[in-house]
Formats: sequence, structure tokens, C-alpha cells
Amino acid sequence: MRRRDFFRNGSLAFLGTALINPGIGQTAARTQKWSGKTARNIIFMVSDGMSNGTLQMADALIYRKEGRHSHWVQLMQQQGTRRALMDTASASSIVTDSAAASSSWGGGKRVPNGSLNVNADGSFNKPILQKFKAKGKSVGCVTSVPITHATPAGFCVNSNKRSAMEDIALEYHKLRFDVMMGGGVNIFSADKRKDKQDVFSLFRNSGFKVVRNRQEMLSIPATNSAPVLGVFHGESLPYEIDRRNDAALISNTPTLAEMAKTALQQLSRNKNGFVMQIEGGKVDWAAHANDAAALLYDQIAFDDALKVAMDFVNNNKDTLLIVTTDHGNANPGLFYGSKAGDNFDKLQSVKHSSDWILMGITKDNTAAQVRERIEAAHGIGVSTEEAGELLKRYQKLDSEGIYNSYKLPFRELAIMEQKYFNIGFGSMDHSGDYVELTMFGPGSENLLPFVKNYELHNFLLKAAGIMA
Amino acid sequence: MRRRDFFRNGSLAFLGTALINPGIGQTAARTQKWSGKTARNIIFMVSDGMSNGTLQMADALIYRKEGRHSHWVQLMQQQGTRRALMDTASASSIVTDSAAASSSWGGGKRVPNGSLNVNADGSFNKPILQKFKAKGKSVGCVTSVPITHATPAGFCVNSNKRSAMEDIALEYHKLRFDVMMGGGVNIFSADKRKDKQDVFSLFRNSGFKVVRNRQEMLSIPATNSAPVLGVFHGESLPYEIDRRNDAALISNTPTLAEMAKTALQQLSRNKNGFVMQIEGGKVDWAAHANDAAALLYDQIAFDDALKVAMDFVNNNKDTLLIVTTDHGNANPGLFYGSKAGDNFDKLQSVKHSSDWILMGITKDNTAAQVRERIEAAHGIGVSTEEAGELLKRYQKLDSEGIYNSYKLPFRELAIMEQKYFNIGFGSMDHSGDYVELTMFGPGSENLLPFVKNYELHNFLLKAAGIMA
Repeated sequence: MRRRDFFRNGSLAFLGTALINPGIGQTAARTQKWSGKTARNIIFMVSDGMSNGTLQMADALIYRKEGRHSHWVQLMQQQGTRRALMDTASASSIVTDSAAASSSWGGGKRVPNGSLNVNADGSFNKPILQKFKAKGKSVGCVTSVPITHATPAGFCVNSNKRSAMEDIALEYHKLRFDVMMGGGVNIFSADKRKDKQDVFSLFRNSGFKVVRNRQEMLSIPATNSAPVLGVFHGESLPYEIDRRNDAALISNTPTLAEMAKTALQQLSRNKNGFVMQIEGGKVDWAAHANDAAALLYDQIAFDDALKVAMDFVNNNKDTLLIVTTDHGNANPGLFYGSKAGDNFDKLQSVKHSSDWILMGITKDNTAAQVRERIEAAHGIGVSTEEAGELLKRYQKLDSEGIYNSYKLPFRELAIMEQKYFNIGFGSMDHSGDYVELTMFGPGSENLLPFVKNYELHNFLLKAAGIMA
Repeated sequence: MRRRDFFRNGSLAFLGTALINPGIGQTAARTQKWSGKTARNIIFMVSDGMSNGTLQMADALIYRKEGRHSHWVQLMQQQGTRRALMDTASASSIVTDSAAASSSWGGGKRVPNGSLNVNADGSFNKPILQKFKAKGKSVGCVTSVPITHATPAGFCVNSNKRSAMEDIALEYHKLRFDVMMGGGVNIFSADKRKDKQDVFSLFRNSGFKVVRNRQEMLSIPATNSAPVLGVFHGESLPYEIDRRNDAALISNTPTLAEMAKTALQQLSRNKNGFVMQIEGGKVDWAAHANDAAALLYDQIAFDDALKVAMDFVNNNKDTLLIVTTDHGNANPGLFYGSKAGDNFDKLQSVKHSSDWILMGITKDNTAAQVRERIEAAHGIGVSTEEAGELLKRYQKLDSEGIYNSYKLPFRELAIMEQKYFNIGFGSMDHSGDYVELTMFGPGSENLLPFVKNYELHNFLLKAAGIMA
């Protein structure tokens, strides 16, 4: 073969193929021909702030403990499942926040970080659950963080400030969506709100079924026809690792899986179908806190909710199931070491989150007390010197930060614990990683293997037959 | 609907589906029915130690600079491309090394870390390129690290010590594979080898075409019928970011893409087809060094080699193309900050690797000189205090470590630079992440969305029609 013929037209021909079979750019998505059956229902699941390593470590933790894969990996192994890598950027940054990320799906356009379906010029993008509700479908959201938080809110409302959660609660009242459940008592309570309004009563007085603990939620009659508001904790729900080791929390606090199951029971009675979002919101908070145990057990709680969704899909084939995340966070990894496996397995006997450890320390404690508290919660014996270093941080606390409320030494604890668990974190912030998206059910055959987050908006509308 | 009917048989039914359409467990892979055309050629590409963030950041760097996606993302957008998530564990650890990882593909079994196709009981697994060579195909490897290094060696030889590279060079001589090219002059040179043997002469005297620099490589006649050994640098090839900013290296050192093109020209004349491995080996070394610029430019060099492969595939449709990595490493990320994008864009004007910076510093330098060297290489102005901290590390150097040869302060430099580039790393070691695998061409329709690394061995044999 002559060299100059060898690569003849190589790149041009490949490009030619790309033009005939266009990729997932905006143009391509527009021209793509839609095929397959119509989805009556859509379940959209978000493990918020889930980096690639989080998915793997949660699966490995389950596999080494129970001898089975996570439900997410089982879903990947299912015949017909489709996967894509998703570009998560926002209008203002290569690294999105949860408000812009959810808005990209919810409104179909990338908006600046911090905004909920409001463009840089102040114009609004109509949130997707409003669109579905107008078409006669039941709609709802459940989450482990405040129900007014960015990820559910991005499917529901327009607001140029994600932090305006007290206003968002009032918006929810106007919208009368069928099921909204999560944390956020402080957002709804007269004694915590700036306007001193009793928003719980507002909901109750306009015909909502309002539930405030696990028993009330589980007692909602299957025949209930009122819209449901469930709000279970002051701010967010507890970390799963703290919940499952606390008898009172086990009794009073619903799991994400229980909320998902209740929501599906309520939503699925509409013959026109439903669209819901299920968010594992505290995966993101745990990543921000570099808290390995909290991270993986909340990812497992999300995975248990996924099981509920998979069971539903199995009995309701006209349901499209999407499982993804809005962005990476902290990019944790299980890193090499001669005892990597043994060290990783120590997470199986952890009792509490780093949050539980650090919130329980005061500057009046001794280093020995700090050491004991870490051992009780994490089952590892740090040195008194290490405990002393941690304690030093309590001398200079202030009250800045969103998640890391009191500037507790989460980062320092994580770095200290890296040699015990072999888990490391690259930062305490979101990453620009392209992320996993898994899809199953009617419409999924149209998923291309590389997508941009905002393209999912029209994808959902098309899958449900609402957009041609 | 009655509650107890709602989830009736949910999990059992889903499990039932899984049994009928088995997943990718070992059993499933064995029972899976093979479909599609036979691949005459296989190109197996490995970006060694590529975490998820590396793929995204390299794509974003190219996109923001040139307005196009990386070739890897373009390949994902190609009609018919398949993707899987791959579990990378070894026989001895949940976190693999490159020897065990390449052996899993090369020999079809997981072996202990450090081993090349030798099981824990001392038994051998026959390396895949030996199998293909025995079937009349041309075979070869190209890499940017020593050609005797773990990833190419795992496709070629049996050795219970990956570090026995001088012996592996002699194995290569016996095997007479068609094209072997990379770094490693020290492994072949009489003056560097323990046995003082001139292995270059050994190859030459037995009919190999031996090439030692870029011009010699580019001058190999298209009609050459001798097996080719190309060895270009003492240890590994330079980092791409150093090569492209050094006139002598540009002239003397082939890029991975040029090596790939030359190898394809030589291998593709065999009517029985060929099987080759192309490794971007220094992606792993840069991750070990937490060296963001070296990492992303070597990932781009790998991506340019992928373009060569894609062009070839486009003109030779009977070629199966696989692009993947053997494991994550350091799990880098582009992390949030108000200037994340601007800071990330500074990488476009970086001139040299962290290796270049740190190898050029001695303990006799001043902090001001260190500061200037960093500015010249990375275009950022660290403080004299920061430079001084780095300099302190030079007082206590020893000679341990594989990649981080002189315990130079790579980690400290990376942490210092995180605020300038917004890129962070979680460790200096491999991670247990499940990794990206992209496949295109005949046989790819059989790829399941979740695979274990060792399953690829039989997959390749089946794709080539050598195994039923």
C-alpha cells in the first residue's frame, strides 16, 4: 500500500459520517428522529453531586458486604438499558451548581449558577413539572434535603435566587403539585420564617394533606386524593449512616426509599400518568464535607430508592426511568495501598457521620475525648496528637459557609482519615466532570452516548409524547 | 389500587428478567450469544491511569481552545459506538496496578498486582498477542513509556515481576512481534543493563529493523518486511507539554500519533489482519505526579493517536477499535470557584511539566529563582514564601519511589497550584473507580454496559473469530 493512499480522506470521511449521523450537539438533537413507544410515566432520579468514584465505592461496599451489585449497576446490566456521559456546565461556569444544573433539565436552557430557570437577561424558562401538570399528569418531588432546595426547585419554579427558599415554599403552595416531600421544617414554620407566616397551616387550610413524620407519611390512605406535602426535619433529613444507628430517627424519619414508595403510590393512580423527581440530596452535602461514610451510605440510600423505582418500572412498562447526577463533587476515590481492601471494609462498621463527630465537639473538650469520639463513630484509633490538631480548629470558628456551616474541620478530618480508609478527596467543591446517565424504558432508545444536560428537557417532553 | 398489590412481585420479576437476559457476570459472558461480523483487525487503546476527570478536562481544554470536541468524545457521538463501565480490580486488590490490569485483558484472568500473566499459584496465562500471532496475524505495541513497561508487556509476556524489564526485552527478541515501539533505551543498552548485553545489536543481528529517533522511524520504507523495534528515550518519552515546547524534542522524538501511524502502516499489510495496543502511558505518570498540565497534554497526545486510529478504521471497516484505561489515578477534577473557567484556561499557555520545574531546582537555588522557574513554566506567580516552602523540601531528598524518583515535592506543588488552575487531586495513587470503555466496529454490538476487565480477553478472541 502506498503511504499517501493509506490515510486518504480519513478525517474527512469520518467527519462525513458524523454529519450524516449527527452527534448530540444542539443541532443534532433537533434533527434527530424520535422513535419508540410513548412513556406514560417518568421517574427522574438524581444522586446530587455524585462523582464517578462515589458510584464505584457504593457498589463495592455493597458487593463486599452482601455479595450483590448495587441496584444501579444491576440496572446497567439489564437488557435494553442505555447509558450516556453528560456534560454538566452552566451558563455562567464550566462548573455548575445544583440550581443551574436542575434548571437545565427543568427549563431546557443553561442559566447562571444560583438561578432557578431565570436567564441572565431576566427572562423565564417554564419549569418542566408545570408543563406536565398542564397536560394532566400528576407531578411531584421527593428529596433528602429541604424540599425547597435547588434540585427539586429547578423542576418546579422560577427564581433568580436559589436561596429564596421561603418564597419557593409559597410558590409550591400556588402550584399545588401532587406530592412534595423532603426536609425543610424551618422554611415552613412561623417561628423561623422572616415573614412569621405559618406556611404549614396555609397548605393545610387549602386542602393539602400535610405529614410531618414517618408514621404520618406511612398512614396516608391509598385512597387519598389531596395533594401531599411531607416535611420531616428542620433543615435536611439526617445522613443515612446517622439515621440507621439511631432508634428515634429510625422510627420517626422516612428513608428516601420510603418517601419514593409513598410518592409513587400517590402519583401512579392518575390514568394520564405522572412525572416525578427523586433526589438523593445529601450525597452532595457529604461530598462537600469530604465525609466518606456519610457519602457512601447516602449513595446506598439513593440506591435503595432506585430499587423502589425499578420494581415500579417492572410492573409498569410504560415508565421511563432516568438515573443520573447533576455534577461531580470532590471526586473521591478509593486509592491504592497495601491494605486498600481491608481499610475500605472498615466502612462497613462505621456508626456515624463526620458531621456527628464534629458537631459534638466543643473547644472545652480534651484531645483524648476527641480521639474517643472518632473511635466510637468511625471505629479507628487516631493518635492523641491528631485529635489535638483537630481540636485546635475549634478555637477559631466563625459562621460562614453554606454546608460547612461553622467551618468545622471536615477537610482536616478527611485528610487525617485517608490512611485509615484509603479514601481521598480532591476538593470540597463541585467538579466539571462529565457524569453518568442511565436510562431504561420507552424513549430510552433515543439516548445518544454523549449529551449536554439541557438537552434532556426536550428529551423528556418527546418521550412523553408532549413534543413532536 | 391496594397497597399490597402495588409492588407485587416487583423484585422477583426484575430478577427474573435478569436471569433470562443475563448481565455481565462470568456466567453471563459465557452464555452470551455472539453476533455480528468478524473483526480482521483490532486496535486496543489505553490511556493509562485515566480518571473520569482527565477525560473531561482534556475535552474541555480542546473545546475551549479549538471549538471542537476531543476525538474520544467525537467517537462517542458516532452512530453505532458502544460504551461500558469497566470494573478494574486485580486478583490481589480492589485497586489494580497496570501489570495486573493489562494481564486481565492480555491473559483473561485476574492476577496479583505486579504480575504479568502469572497466577498466584505460579501458573501462566498465555498472552493474547501470542495467540493472535499464532493465528497468522501481525501484532504490536506502541507506548510513550518504556516498551517493556507493564501495559504493553501484559499483552506479550509472562513474568511474575513487572520490574524485570531487562528480561522482558529479551523475551521480546524471542517473540519477534511485528512492531514494538516506545521508550526504554536503558533497558536495551549494554552500558545500562546488569548483564552488559547489547540488546539493540541482538535485535539488529537477527533481522529486526531498529530505529532510535523520529527521523529513522519516519524513514522506514512502506515496503519494509522486517519486524520493527523502535526505542526513543532512556526511560520514557518526554511529557507532551515538554516535547511541544522544545525544538530538539520536536525534531527527534516521535509523538504517540506518529508512532501509531507508522505501526499501522507496517501492521496493516498482512492480509490476515493485525492486533495492536496503543498506550498513552505517561497519562498515568502525570497523575502519579499530580501534574495537571502534563496530564492533560498527554491525554491530548493520546487523543491525537486516537484520531489516527479513527482515520484508519474509517478506511478499514473490518477493524474493531477499543478505547479505554486500565484504572483511575489520583481522580483529578476541575473544581468550582468564581474564576474556574479563566483559571482552567491558563493551562492553554503552560510551557512545561511540573517534572521540568522540579528536576531543574537544586537546594542551592533561592526562593526567588524557584518562583521565576514556576512562572516561566506555568505562567503563574506564586509568592516567594510559597516558593520557599517548596525549596525546603530539597533539603531532605532520598532516592526511593518508582515514578516520584527523588521524592520531589510534586504533591506540594500541586496543592500550591490548586488555587491558580482550580484543579485538585485526591491522592498520588491509582483508584478503584469503574472506568470508561468505548468501542466501535465489528463485534462491538456484543458489549454489555458493565464489564469486568478480564472479560475483554475472550471478547477480543470472539470478535476476531478465533474463539466460538
